[in-house]
Amino acid sequence: MSRIISIGIVGYGNLGRGVEAAIRQNSDLRLEAIFTRRNPGSIESGTPMVSISDIEQYKGKIDVMILCGGSAKDLPEQGPSLAKHFHTVDSFDTHALIPEYYDKVNDAAVSNGNVSVISTGWDPGLFSLNRLLAEAVLPDGKEYTFWGKGVSQGHSDAIRRVEGVSNGIQYTIPREEAVERVRSGSNPVLTTREKHLRECFVVLKDGANPEAVANEIKSMPNYFADYETVVHFVAEATLQAEHAKMPHGGNVIRSGQTGQGNGNTQLIEFGLKLDSNPEFTASVLVAYARAAYRMAQAGQTGAKTVFDVPYGLLSPKSPEQLRKELL
Amino acid sequence: MSRIISIGIVGYGNLGRGVEAAIRQNSDLRLEAIFTRRNPGSIESGTPMVSISDIEQYKGKIDVMILCGGSAKDLPEQGPSLAKHFHTVDSFDTHALIPEYYDKVNDAAVSNGNVSVISTGWDPGLFSLNRLLAEAVLPDGKEYTFWGKGVSQGHSDAIRRVEGVSNGIQYTIPREEAVERVRSGSNPVLTTREKHLRECFVVLKDGANPEAVANEIKSMPNYFADYETVVHFVAEATLQAEHAKMPHGGNVIRSGQTGQGNGNTQLIEFGLKLDSNPEFTASVLVAYARAAYRMAQAGQTGAKTVFDVPYGLLSPKSPEQLRKELL
Repeated sequence: MSRIISIGIVGYGNLGRGVEAAIRQNSDLRLEAIFTRRNPGSIESGTPMVSISDIEQYKGKIDVMILCGGSAKDLPEQGPSLAKHFHTVDSFDTHALIPEYYDKVNDAAVSNGNVSVISTGWDPGLFSLNRLLAEAVLPDGKEYTFWGKGVSQGHSDAIRRVEGVSNGIQYTIPREEAVERVRSGSNPVLTTREKHLRECFVVLKDGANPEAVANEIKSMPNYFADYETVVHFVAEATLQAEHAKMPHGGNVIRSGQTGQGNGNTQLIEFGLKLDSNPEFTASVLVAYARAAYRMAQAGQTGAKTVFDVPYGLLSPKSPEQLRKELL
Repeated sequence: MSRIISIGIVGYGNLGRGVEAAIRQNSDLRLEAIFTRRNPGSIESGTPMVSISDIEQYKGKIDVMILCGGSAKDLPEQGPSLAKHFHTVDSFDTHALIPEYYDKVNDAAVSNGNVSVISTGWDPGLFSLNRLLAEAVLPDGKEYTFWGKGVSQGHSDAIRRVEGVSNGIQYTIPREEAVERVRSGSNPVLTTREKHLRECFVVLKDGANPEAVANEIKSMPNYFADYETVVHFVAEATLQAEHAKMPHGGNVIRSGQTGQGNGNTQLIEFGLKLDSNPEFTASVLVAYARAAYRMAQAGQTGAKTVFDVPYGLLSPKSPEQLRKELL
């Protein structure tokens, strides 16, 4: 019915590769080109690879750019600068800096008549939507977010900076007892230590002292000191063989009271169990790219978050079809 | 910041009473009046009770009418007729008739510059949203909806029509084995009998034959014949004491593949565990009443479904606050 939407990918790491695969699952989208800071000739891909310095030549040829760079260094620069030339979608996930990022991208998008969906993915993203929904429906209640089982890049990086460590990975694991207490509707007060535990798989450098390394990890402030932390020492080959995937997930749970003091407890839960965190985030970005294009077609401009996008715009189906098949 | 939104309730059964209680939990909403077909003087309530025949006198005094009648007889008439005079929200839930109902309400609402959010609640409603989201994010996958444990009014009514039965109630129960198979990501093919079982609590009339009653229930086409059905006989006092609540809930689960044939399975699950089905549905209606008012303020008109309403409009918080606190 509607025409094919042409997509560009900016940045070709795990997330960019996930977006490339996700676009193949959607027949109303077509991947035009991938933009990279590396030498385009050096990268294997079935998609045209283009130097990011040539990106403005694609103005008018690409409907939506999906920004797959990191939140620390890439997006703060690329988000506002690309919103001047294209509709964009990104997964900016530094929660504390979202308001500032929103303002910058919004200024660029509004001035140039573009739509930019920022901070989508699953947290921020689908988890945020469920926090909002559950709070709006059950105002007299309490919300809990659990993350995991999943790899935390920040904590894995912290392990690898420890003296004597050659490689390592960290899993954040929600404590099943805590999840069950929340599901019971009792609205427990839970400490950091009660909600999650941290499991580390560490490869030592030759001659390193395992006990000293384990102690340094477990006592690291901000990262591990407030948690129960388990440290396993493994060989590099084991790490590569058994810990190469990037699983993640978690649950947003809210329970609340309704009625007039009759003790009725209501529980809303949203959960994800992901074999691949970057591939799932990529799939969410792709659905929001479709929505960004449609919002632009409807005359909207500016930065948008998941809170501003009706679900109907995420699906390739028409409103009539959605009411008939999915409502 | 924004002014108080004035609400009317049409119909004062379980759902209407739930809406009355839910409005008290939201300080930006005020309940103006409850409209009833009964004699208003005969009903106990802290809210002004008004005959439904006087409802048009409230034009301009009430921002949004929440329609709490039934889908079989009340809403097909009240939905289109009240959409001429007010912004409305309803929980029309006869899935097969939604497209026709949408068209009628839409005509009335558009012609009179009103907004009508139809078919909200949890199914149709929050479950529909999650079916859409999961399908849009994981197009290469399979979706399962489980209902219960909860009371089915239709099946309870069917039991009560059986010869020899004086009262009864039916619970729909998802089969845990089936739910777990779906959660494993194996996308099983499940028969009706494998997904849910039906449990009945039946009060017999004096002299009725329990075996004959149980057989008639279990072999009833459409309602029970395709399921494993358990029938318990209880005294009326037990039914009143132990089965007076209206619990319900269920799960929408989709698992799908991402990536390029690397076997990565992703699972999205949304679940509800409700002590009171009508009170929860009421809480959802109230959040969508806020959204209906805001869509109208923004100049929109016509019938809307949950697919057309951005989550941000459901919350009393401002967009800035939502981005800061919940994203």
